[in-house]
Amino acid sequence: MSHPQSGQAVSLGLIQLSCAEDLEENFTKSVQHIRAAAKQGAQVICLQELFRSRYFCQREEIACFDLAEEIPGPSTERLGDLARELKVVIIASLFEKRAPGLYHNSAVIIDSSGNLLGKYRKMHIPDDPYYHEKFYFTPGDLGFQSFSTPSVELGVLVCWDQWFPEAARLTALKGAQLILYPTAIGWLEGESEEMNQAQCAAWETVQRGHAVANGVFLAAVNRVGQEGPLTFWGQSFVCDPFGRILAKASAEQEEVLVVECNLEQIEETRRNWPFLRDRRIETYQDLSVRFLDESTARE
Amino acid sequence: MSHPQSGQAVSLGLIQLSCAEDLEENFTKSVQHIRAAAKQGAQVICLQELFRSRYFCQREEIACFDLAEEIPGPSTERLGDLARELKVVIIASLFEKRAPGLYHNSAVIIDSSGNLLGKYRKMHIPDDPYYHEKFYFTPGDLGFQSFSTPSVELGVLVCWDQWFPEAARLTALKGAQLILYPTAIGWLEGESEEMNQAQCAAWETVQRGHAVANGVFLAAVNRVGQEGPLTFWGQSFVCDPFGRILAKASAEQEEVLVVECNLEQIEETRRNWPFLRDRRIETYQDLSVRFLDESTARE
Repeated sequence: MSHPQSGQAVSLGLIQLSCAEDLEENFTKSVQHIRAAAKQGAQVICLQELFRSRYFCQREEIACFDLAEEIPGPSTERLGDLARELKVVIIASLFEKRAPGLYHNSAVIIDSSGNLLGKYRKMHIPDDPYYHEKFYFTPGDLGFQSFSTPSVELGVLVCWDQWFPEAARLTALKGAQLILYPTAIGWLEGESEEMNQAQCAAWETVQRGHAVANGVFLAAVNRVGQEGPLTFWGQSFVCDPFGRILAKASAEQEEVLVVECNLEQIEETRRNWPFLRDRRIETYQDLSVRFLDESTARE
Repeated sequence: MSHPQSGQAVSLGLIQLSCAEDLEENFTKSVQHIRAAAKQGAQVICLQELFRSRYFCQREEIACFDLAEEIPGPSTERLGDLARELKVVIIASLFEKRAPGLYHNSAVIIDSSGNLLGKYRKMHIPDDPYYHEKFYFTPGDLGFQSFSTPSVELGVLVCWDQWFPEAARLTALKGAQLILYPTAIGWLEGESEEMNQAQCAAWETVQRGHAVANGVFLAAVNRVGQEGPLTFWGQSFVCDPFGRILAKASAEQEEVLVVECNLEQIEETRRNWPFLRDRRIETYQDLSVRFLDESTARE
């Protein structure tokens, strides 16, 4: 793990889009927006979860496995060429075919030379009505990681991981200065406006909480648009180590956010609130337990 | 661990006060406000951190150890009588003298029969300018707990614990439906208004994040008033398992908040967002490590 020089700032680009049925249309639009973000100076550009297609996990359908591809594969090759041309780091969420019948919800980190710097496989897999991810995705087996780029140490987690403080903490302990969450989260039709807003606020709050607890920058990149009964709520955002929102996209529009993150703020924040100094690591072993009731078998 | 009946609501009372030099004055005022909260129907009443005295940790002074008392001791006896009289549960933060030269920042849970139901010793101890707690308080050795009362399963954590997702998680895994944080946090003179507000917002955000991540009710009880260069920022609050603020006190006034918490909401929230189902417990062992760089010794 190398440490970018202090005093460094990184320009982060988030691409919030809607998705059409046509895969090529989605890919082409994503490329256009990556170009736009690069033109605005973004050095690290993150796409939304499963950006190539509509959110197929709404139903359990064997044929949808055809959407998966190998890593490296066609998408990483194309995005690698683009990253090299634009001299940017690209984070892309892909449906990974690993072996016959073995699939993951993965994110790749492509460096500015176009090389595959690393891969994260979504660790926490949801399964709710219209989010049937346990049907498609094998839980990740690569653990929580941080990847060194010239401009920033970055960790990537994916969507449902957002709700787990353990994921953010382990990624920060690996040295991440910035945690990125490609996301596909939305409202289900028929719920009240009050519940919709409460869900969205809780989603933002828990992530801002991770930024505070770990003293890191954090960004979520969500899709927009209606797909069947789901309306993806957008509102991609970047927050600083104080949990302050630096930029936030709308709930409905396709947008490119380009946001400067001053990484010096991490050291400054952590000096004033030295949580990493005071963690009681000798008392945390029960975090590896499901629930601490009488039924938990203990050594 | 027993489980209160579903459908049950608990009425929670938070006592936000300023402190005078005179200990008896503080105690008497706290008793008055406990009575007021009970009169408004509060069943579980929580005092602020170290409610008996001004925040002596601003300086390192040997004589301040005289403020400590044994548990059980005079304060628990007096509060026990009060709890029995009012038929309420009282949570009180005390400076505990455990043995000669061995002190803790503890919180006691006194049941409505006046008995000492349990004790928590603050696990995470801060040390910052004007918060010299490592001088006074030995880190807690009782771990993270939940206590069964007839109206609610409750966990108690104290102040600096607020910033550690591990503490909230372990308390929730013990079965807590409500996490209470007696607190003494304030602004240091000479800081900008912008920084002051950012600190306060981060403090609230990270705790609301714990409520969301764990699907629990959560309350912080802070003091108000100026003590030397510190102005305690009050703003005691209660939030629900969605992180929604149910009630919040002012930054400057002494206040009693009495808030009804509908515990049914916990099951409902967790059914919709089943984070406890999806924790990847087999991958969390590194949470017991200080930092995951090359210098960490690994088995």
